[in-house]
Amino acid sequence: MTTITPSTITPSTITKAACIGGGVIGGAWAARFVLAGIDTRIYDPHPEAERIIGEVMANAERAYAMLTTAPLPPRGKLIFCKSLREAVEVADWIQESVPERLELKRGVLTEIDAHARPDALIGSSTSGLLPSELQRDMAHPGRFFVAHPYNPVYLLPLVELVGGTGTTADTIARAERAAEQIGMKGVVIHKEIEAFVGDRLLEALWREALWLIHDGICDTETLDNVIRYSFGLRWAQMGLFETYRIAGGEAGMRHFLAQFGPCLSWPWTKLTDVVDLNDALVEKIGAQSDAQAKGRSIRELERIRDENLVGILQALKGGNGGEGWGAGQLLANFEQRLWREAKAPALPDPSAPLRLVEAKVSAAWVDYNGHMTEHRYLQLFGDTADALLRLIGVDMAYVEAGHSYYTVETHLRHLGEARLGQRLYTTLQLLSHDAKRLHFFSCVHDAETGAVLATAEQMMLHVDSAAGRASPAPQAVLDRLAPIAEAHGALARPEGAGRFVGQPR
Amino acid sequence: MTTITPSTITPSTITKAACIGGGVIGGAWAARFVLAGIDTRIYDPHPEAERIIGEVMANAERAYAMLTTAPLPPRGKLIFCKSLREAVEVADWIQESVPERLELKRGVLTEIDAHARPDALIGSSTSGLLPSELQRDMAHPGRFFVAHPYNPVYLLPLVELVGGTGTTADTIARAERAAEQIGMKGVVIHKEIEAFVGDRLLEALWREALWLIHDGICDTETLDNVIRYSFGLRWAQMGLFETYRIAGGEAGMRHFLAQFGPCLSWPWTKLTDVVDLNDALVEKIGAQSDAQAKGRSIRELERIRDENLVGILQALKGGNGGEGWGAGQLLANFEQRLWREAKAPALPDPSAPLRLVEAKVSAAWVDYNGHMTEHRYLQLFGDTADALLRLIGVDMAYVEAGHSYYTVETHLRHLGEARLGQRLYTTLQLLSHDAKRLHFFSCVHDAETGAVLATAEQMMLHVDSAAGRASPAPQAVLDRLAPIAEAHGALARPEGAGRFVGQPR
Repeated sequence: MTTITPSTITPSTITKAACIGGGVIGGAWAARFVLAGIDTRIYDPHPEAERIIGEVMANAERAYAMLTTAPLPPRGKLIFCKSLREAVEVADWIQESVPERLELKRGVLTEIDAHARPDALIGSSTSGLLPSELQRDMAHPGRFFVAHPYNPVYLLPLVELVGGTGTTADTIARAERAAEQIGMKGVVIHKEIEAFVGDRLLEALWREALWLIHDGICDTETLDNVIRYSFGLRWAQMGLFETYRIAGGEAGMRHFLAQFGPCLSWPWTKLTDVVDLNDALVEKIGAQSDAQAKGRSIRELERIRDENLVGILQALKGGNGGEGWGAGQLLANFEQRLWREAKAPALPDPSAPLRLVEAKVSAAWVDYNGHMTEHRYLQLFGDTADALLRLIGVDMAYVEAGHSYYTVETHLRHLGEARLGQRLYTTLQLLSHDAKRLHFFSCVHDAETGAVLATAEQMMLHVDSAAGRASPAPQAVLDRLAPIAEAHGALARPEGAGRFVGQPR
Repeated sequence: MTTITPSTITPSTITKAACIGGGVIGGAWAARFVLAGIDTRIYDPHPEAERIIGEVMANAERAYAMLTTAPLPPRGKLIFCKSLREAVEVADWIQESVPERLELKRGVLTEIDAHARPDALIGSSTSGLLPSELQRDMAHPGRFFVAHPYNPVYLLPLVELVGGTGTTADTIARAERAAEQIGMKGVVIHKEIEAFVGDRLLEALWREALWLIHDGICDTETLDNVIRYSFGLRWAQMGLFETYRIAGGEAGMRHFLAQFGPCLSWPWTKLTDVVDLNDALVEKIGAQSDAQAKGRSIRELERIRDENLVGILQALKGGNGGEGWGAGQLLANFEQRLWREAKAPALPDPSAPLRLVEAKVSAAWVDYNGHMTEHRYLQLFGDTADALLRLIGVDMAYVEAGHSYYTVETHLRHLGEARLGQRLYTTLQLLSHDAKRLHFFSCVHDAETGAVLATAEQMMLHVDSAAGRASPAPQAVLDRLAPIAEAHGALARPEGAGRFVGQPR
């Protein structure tokens, strides 16, 4: 058995990935990779693989468009391969997501092992098989690990990282960094057991749930409501122990355990029995689930789920005093990295107002009439101003170094309405500037017709953040403004500029 | 045994509540009641009861201030009583939250039974005891039920409603309506079993979690991360079965069960054993939990938890195309009811700009520098305009009847900064109006100094929503505007009004 020594391992970021198996899980891994700018090769002999992956990819693109306005890198290429070898031989990270059968996975992993680069990471999406068992027949098992994700993989950040006896520590460390690169949280489980940690917990709760349905204590909708109106809300942001720590109050965790401990020996749960999931029970659950869905298709439920997840992630991004909390902090970190790494964007054609932001109206942006709410327009205009600032070199590093532009004045006009799901884009025309001031006029357009739905005239001041007062922008920033100012000076002044509220047309 | 006949039961809303036992759970029930406008009497002989309830109440008030701008009714009175009798004898709903011992609870319930009004609802917060056992000694058991809530009761909406053999169907139906009145989701469990549904599920997962810690598979922080980065996010919005329905894809729930069923018989979980929660394990968990808290106090963790829950509830309120989903839909329904029932507010003193909205800068409102983001100012100005509209009779019913005012133009100026936790209020001065137009000038003030942080000059048009065009407002609305217009006509015109962007001072 050849051991790969640390010195042969490059710590570089992942630029090429391979997905072996392209179902719902493999396809969603591919979406994660591609949207993080990584070229991704897929091998799946299933005749419908391209269709299935295409659908997952569409869901993922839709979700990311709502999730973040951070500068995602240009999408990676998605390449369907005719052989496993073709898919894996150039990859930095190969992720296996074939059906959950030990012999099948071993065979596929052996073939990956034969064709992969020596320094490639080889992960398996197994939800329960032991990594030591899976890597048994590999010639180079050191680079193999379990990377167990959760559906929908493109939105849920957790990936459980578990090594087997043959896995090197370096592989796990590299896998953690690689997970971070694609916006995931690599949680390392140091001891391998079947089903790892997440599925152990899920399995325990699942068995109890099946008993509750089997015994007719409640139906599936009641059980789901019990979860989502109570501890589901807690667990989206803190887990089990941190929640109970709070429940213990000032007396703390030990006090809570002393209080709660005795319940464990009460005959509450049917732990000693495994429910027989026979045809009758399957039919009972199936029928209750149908009733609960109220005619909504799987596609519709996916859409609702993804919009909810996006909303929750964004809410948690604002948690803990704006620093972000849990999955929201991870999102904030991911976005800050994207901002830091974003190359100065190429200047769009300056002979017209600059086209800067593309957006789609998400559920969280509309009121109960389905119209986009007023303050979300201002959010779009803010994103548009940020995009202009990046064009002239005022990026995250610039702000962190102590200077920025602050908005001091805004004039908004509403000329039309945007509705849920509508695609929009924004344009910006520079009206004037000097060493301290930026004066510009932006529009929100309907993406289909180009019609202007709202306009904003804004004035920004260059400031010294620590001193809290206006200061002249450096020459480098002014130099980048110059060609825009020159081109836009030749454009007609927008009809709505320079107006005060209530001014007759 | 006297049975209370339906004819003696009034279906009216709850106006007086009693809380027997005022710990973390009883105190949070009191907060729910009081913030929903219900006068609440508390009986708890514990010497620290007032302090504990005061702390819970402060948390609840803080959370509600962030949660909603809907017109909460004037707070109910909170009355500490010297005897149980004094607390319960006038109450519509009596909620028992004393420690979890059958004999103690039976004694307290018998005493409540002796002094309560015949038509009172009597709920118990027990998390596990059977209602039939609890109501055994009551003379009037028909009005008794379990109302099992989840911590923090003032934010988590679930209350499991479980009747015993002596409980009438009418009592459960009334309890459901009463729960709705205070913004909770009453989920009825039709068969009584120990621990009902929620704690059955929690108990199963908790036992498995204790084994994972006991066996050293992971520590408490790892386990919490596994939950909150994956299925915790799913369960905040869909439960177990709806999530798995989606996982089954187009093939559906029955397909999923057929696939997943076999795992049940695998030897994954340690279901047959109950972990011994001895001193060593308690200490192990306590130490890991301390490390995980990273020095944060319980108060700090409560604050973070509540802000996260508020953010999640608000995100879900925007779900499902703006209709709201799960706990967010419940919040939307609660707010709509508040809007509908809100009495036309009394006109604030019109001899000065109208003071209309009070707010506190929440975590979701600040950027990573801790400053309130630009578009949240516009949100506050929008709430201020809504408050003016309610004053002149343009409320939910008015909008639903087909007319409203739409903002067409806004001029914003930023004069200062608001930071996380800062208390703010807004004022509004009417500049002019005619049958179709409302022109006004609003300010966001720091609540402590009165300093103006931002101003907005806005123009709104009265519209026929269906036709989508301007239309004259009815005389009743104009009549309500008249006294404001008259008083504000005598005020000096605000210095910032009538300005265009970049106009020299």
